Amino acid sequence: MAKDKKLVEAITSMEVDFAQWYTDVVKKAELIDYSSVKGCMVIKPAGYAIWENIQKELDRRFKETGVENVYMPMFIPESLLQKEKDHVEGFAPEVAWVTHGGLNPLQERMCIRPTSETLFCDFYANDIQSYRDLPKCYNQWCSVVRWEKETRPFLRSREFLWQEGHTAHATAEEAEERTLQMLRLYADFCEEVLAMPVIRGRKTEKEKFAGAEATYTIEALMHDGKALQSGTSHNFGDGFAKAFGIQYTDKDNKLQYVHQTSWGMTTRLIGAIIMVHGDDSGLVLPPEIAPVQVMVIPIQQHKDGILNKACEVKELLAQAGIRVKMDDSEKSPGWKFSEQEMRGIPIRVELGPKDMEAGKCVLVRRDTREKTECPLEEAAAAAVELLKTIQKDMFERAKKHQESHVTEVKSYDEFKDAVEHKPGFIRAMWCGDVECENKIKEDTTATSRCMPLEAQKAVSDVCVCCGKPAHKLVYWGKAY
Amino acid sequence: MAKDKKLVEAITSMEVDFAQWYTDVVKKAELIDYSSVKGCMVIKPAGYAIWENIQKELDRRFKETGVENVYMPMFIPESLLQKEKDHVEGFAPEVAWVTHGGLNPLQERMCIRPTSETLFCDFYANDIQSYRDLPKCYNQWCSVVRWEKETRPFLRSREFLWQEGHTAHATAEEAEERTLQMLRLYADFCEEVLAMPVIRGRKTEKEKFAGAEATYTIEALMHDGKALQSGTSHNFGDGFAKAFGIQYTDKDNKLQYVHQTSWGMTTRLIGAIIMVHGDDSGLVLPPEIAPVQVMVIPIQQHKDGILNKACEVKELLAQAGIRVKMDDSEKSPGWKFSEQEMRGIPIRVELGPKDMEAGKCVLVRRDTREKTECPLEEAAAAAVELLKTIQKDMFERAKKHQESHVTEVKSYDEFKDAVEHKPGFIRAMWCGDVECENKIKEDTTATSRCMPLEAQKAVSDVCVCCGKPAHKLVYWGKAY
Repeated sequence: MAKDKKLVEAITSMEVDFAQWYTDVVKKAELIDYSSVKGCMVIKPAGYAIWENIQKELDRRFKETGVENVYMPMFIPESLLQKEKDHVEGFAPEVAWVTHGGLNPLQERMCIRPTSETLFCDFYANDIQSYRDLPKCYNQWCSVVRWEKETRPFLRSREFLWQEGHTAHATAEEAEERTLQMLRLYADFCEEVLAMPVIRGRKTEKEKFAGAEATYTIEALMHDGKALQSGTSHNFGDGFAKAFGIQYTDKDNKLQYVHQTSWGMTTRLIGAIIMVHGDDSGLVLPPEIAPVQVMVIPIQQHKDGILNKACEVKELLAQAGIRVKMDDSEKSPGWKFSEQEMRGIPIRVELGPKDMEAGKCVLVRRDTREKTECPLEEAAAAAVELLKTIQKDMFERAKKHQESHVTEVKSYDEFKDAVEHKPGFIRAMWCGDVECENKIKEDTTATSRCMPLEAQKAVSDVCVCCGKPAHKLVYWGKAY
Repeated sequence: MAKDKKLVEAITSMEVDFAQWYTDVVKKAELIDYSSVKGCMVIKPAGYAIWENIQKELDRRFKETGVENVYMPMFIPESLLQKEKDHVEGFAPEVAWVTHGGLNPLQERMCIRPTSETLFCDFYANDIQSYRDLPKCYNQWCSVVRWEKETRPFLRSREFLWQEGHTAHATAEEAEERTLQMLRLYADFCEEVLAMPVIRGRKTEKEKFAGAEATYTIEALMHDGKALQSGTSHNFGDGFAKAFGIQYTDKDNKLQYVHQTSWGMTTRLIGAIIMVHGDDSGLVLPPEIAPVQVMVIPIQQHKDGILNKACEVKELLAQAGIRVKMDDSEKSPGWKFSEQEMRGIPIRVELGPKDMEAGKCVLVRRDTREKTECPLEEAAAAAVELLKTIQKDMFERAKKHQESHVTEVKSYDEFKDAVEHKPGFIRAMWCGDVECENKIKEDTTATSRCMPLEAQKAVSDVCVCCGKPAHKLVYWGKAY
C-alpha cells in the first residue's frame, strides 16, 4: 500500500532540522504539493479546507463590523501603480508584468496586483462624492502575486490567497479607530480560533507598509523561536487620497480628502498553525479550525457489529454538531492512527470488540495523546467537552511557550548573545534612529518586530544599540 | 440628494433598447462599476452578495456529491498549455501573457489561466498512481482571464469569477456519469434557486470545448429571446490523460489511462438573472438568491412609535429566518420604494401611522406589485409564505416565456423568417454536417445551441439547411 506508506513514514524531527520538519509536515499531511509553476504551490483538499474555515470565520467577523465584500480587477495598469510614490517604490521590484493580450502587445503594460490599494483608490475617486457616501468598508478575497526569489509553502510564495480590506472615512480619527479595530479583530481571531497568542504592536518607520502613515501588526512566535508576522492593519491618513484625488463634500459643502485604511491576512496563517502547534508526529489542529474534528477508528472492523456500532457513534457525534468522519478503509488500525495524527485531527475515537462488549469507546487526544474511556451513550457529550478543553489547552501551552521565550536585554552584548543563544523575542529599548535598526539587522539578522501597543515597563532608558536616551520599547527577533 | 437621484432616475425601457436597459440596470442597481482596467469590471457589494449566495449554494451541492475544493496556481507555463493540441488552439489566441517577473524577463513566458485543465492534468500526473487514488473530484473557485475584444458586464469580460471542477476516473462510464451528474446539478440549481428554466443538451462538434470528447450545456432564454449558455460540463475521455501521461495501476496491476471531466459556472449567471427576471423598474431577484429578501419601509417615520414598530417587524422577520433590512434613511417613501424596486428586493413591507393604528402592515411583491394587508403579528409567517410563492411564480413565468418562444421549422425559409421575426429558440432538424452549421450561422447569425438530452419528437426527417436525411434535433438561436 504505497500511499499509506508515503503518509506515515517517519518525518524529520523538529529538533534535528526544523525547516525540514516543516516541509515534511506540509507534504505528508497532504496540505500542499509543489507545482510545475516555479514558486507557486497547489493547495490540496486538506490544506484548502483549513483556509475555508479561516475564511468563513473571518468573513463573519468582518461583516459584523459592517464590512461588505467586493471584487476588483486583478490587473493594475503601470500608470495607476505609479500614482503614489512610496507605494510604487515598495512594490514595483516584485510584481509580475503582463505585456501581451492574445496575439497583440498591450499599449500599456499591467502588473498583477501585489495588493490593491491603487485599484480601490481609483474606484473610490469616482464612487465617493458626499459625506453621505462615507464610510466605505470594503473587503475582497482573492489571490495576489509577488515575485519572491526564495519561496516556502504558505510562508512565502509567488502567488498567495488573502483578504484585503480597504476603507475610506471622513476623519483621521475614524480611520485610526478602524485600523485598530481590525487589528483587535485579527488578534482575537488568532487567539480564540487558531489558539495562537500574538503580540499586538506598531511597526517602526522602516518596517511599515509602502505608503502607510502607520502600520500595526500582530506577531506570533513559532516553535523554533522565530517570529511570524500574522496580520497587518495600515492607516494611510490622506496620502493616497491626495495622490488619487479622493474628495468628498462635507456637511458645510466644503471639499475634504478622505482618510483610508487597509488590512490583510493570508494563507500564511496555515504555516503559523503548523509551526505553533505541530509536533514530531505531524500537524496538530486547534478544534475550532480543524476541518475534521474527530476521526472514528473501528478496531477489528471485520468482526460482527463493529462497523455498525462505529457508524452509530459517528452519527451521534455529527448530531452534536461535531465535524466527524469514520476511517473504515482496509488499513490496519496502526496506520489509521498514524494518519489521523499526521493530519492533526484533534480527537480519535477507538472502538473495538472489547469496547463494544463493555458498551464504551476510547477517546484519544491528538495534542497530549491522553486516553479517556467513555460509555458509548456519553461519547458525543464527552467529545464536545474534550474539543473545548483541547482548544483551551493548546492556547495555554502556546502562550506559555511564547512567554518563556522573551528575553529582556539592556546592553548590545546581551542582545547579540540572546539572538545567538536564546530563541524567541528580545525586548530592548531603541532610540528611534533607523541607523540603529539597520545596524542591529546587519549585525544579528534580528529585525524590529513591533512596538507593543499595551503599556509595558521600560527595560532601561538608553538605546540598546547606540546608548543614547531611548523611550521606545521594541520586540526584536528573527522572523519568517 | 445627488445619490438618490442617480439611483432612481428612469432607466431605458427594455422594449426600446434591451442592451441599454441591461447596462442601466447593472449600473443603477449598483451591481458593478466600470474600472480603469479596460474590459474588467468592479463588482460592487450588491453584485458580489449575489455571487456569494450562488457560491454558497453551489458549493454545498458540490460537496454533497463528494467534491473537494483545492487551489491551483494562476499561471500556466507556455509549454504546459501546449501539451494538448486542440486545447492550445482553442485558448492561445485569447490569453494574457506574463513575460517579466520583478525586474527580469522570464525564461519561459506564462499565461494567466483561461481555464485550468492543463494545471490539473499536470498535478494529477504526479498525484494519481493507483486505482485506490481514484476518483479525484476536485473543484476550485477563482478568477480566470480571456482577452475578449468586446466586453459586457457579467456576460463577457476579460477577467471573470467562476468555479471549475476537474475530475479523474478509472473508467469511461464513470466519467460520463459524472459529466451528466454535474449537468443535472447545474440545471436543478438554475431552476430551483435562480427560478430560471433551462434546456439540457449536448453541444455539436463545432461548439464543444477545446479538447473535449463531449460538451453538455444548459441553455436559458433571456427576455429578449436570445439564448445564454449558463453552464457546461465536459467529458474529456482519455485525451488529456494521454497528452499528460496520467496513468494508474488497476487491480490487476496493469497501467491504465484515467478518464476526465470538467465543468464550470461563472458570474455570467448574474447577467442571466437580470435578463430573465428584470423589468423596466430594474432588477427582480428570486427570493432564494436575493441578498436582502424583504425591505421594511416606515411611512412618516418621524411620527411617534413608527420607527420602533417597524424595527419590531424587522426583528420578527429576521427571527423567521428572512434576510431583512429596514430603510430608515431621510429619503421620502417614494424614493425608498424606487430604490427597493431597482435593487430587485422581492418584498417590501410598508408601515405607516394608519397601519400601526389598525395593527397591520402592507406587503408589496416586487415581481407583480401586488399588495396584501396583513396583521402585524402575522407579518413574518405571511412573508415566509409570500417568498415561496414569488419564487414559484417567477419560475412559472420564466418557463411560460421560454415555452412560448420556441418555433418549430421545417424549411430554410421558415428558419430565416423565424430568426428575423420570432425571438427565441428554433427547433429544427440537422444532418450533422458542420458545413450546414456554418452556413446557418453565416446566413442568419443563429448558432446551434444544443441537441436536447430528453427524447423529443422529430420535427421532420430532413436537414433544415441542405435537405439531406437528418436525425438530429437541434435548438438554434442567437446567443450572448
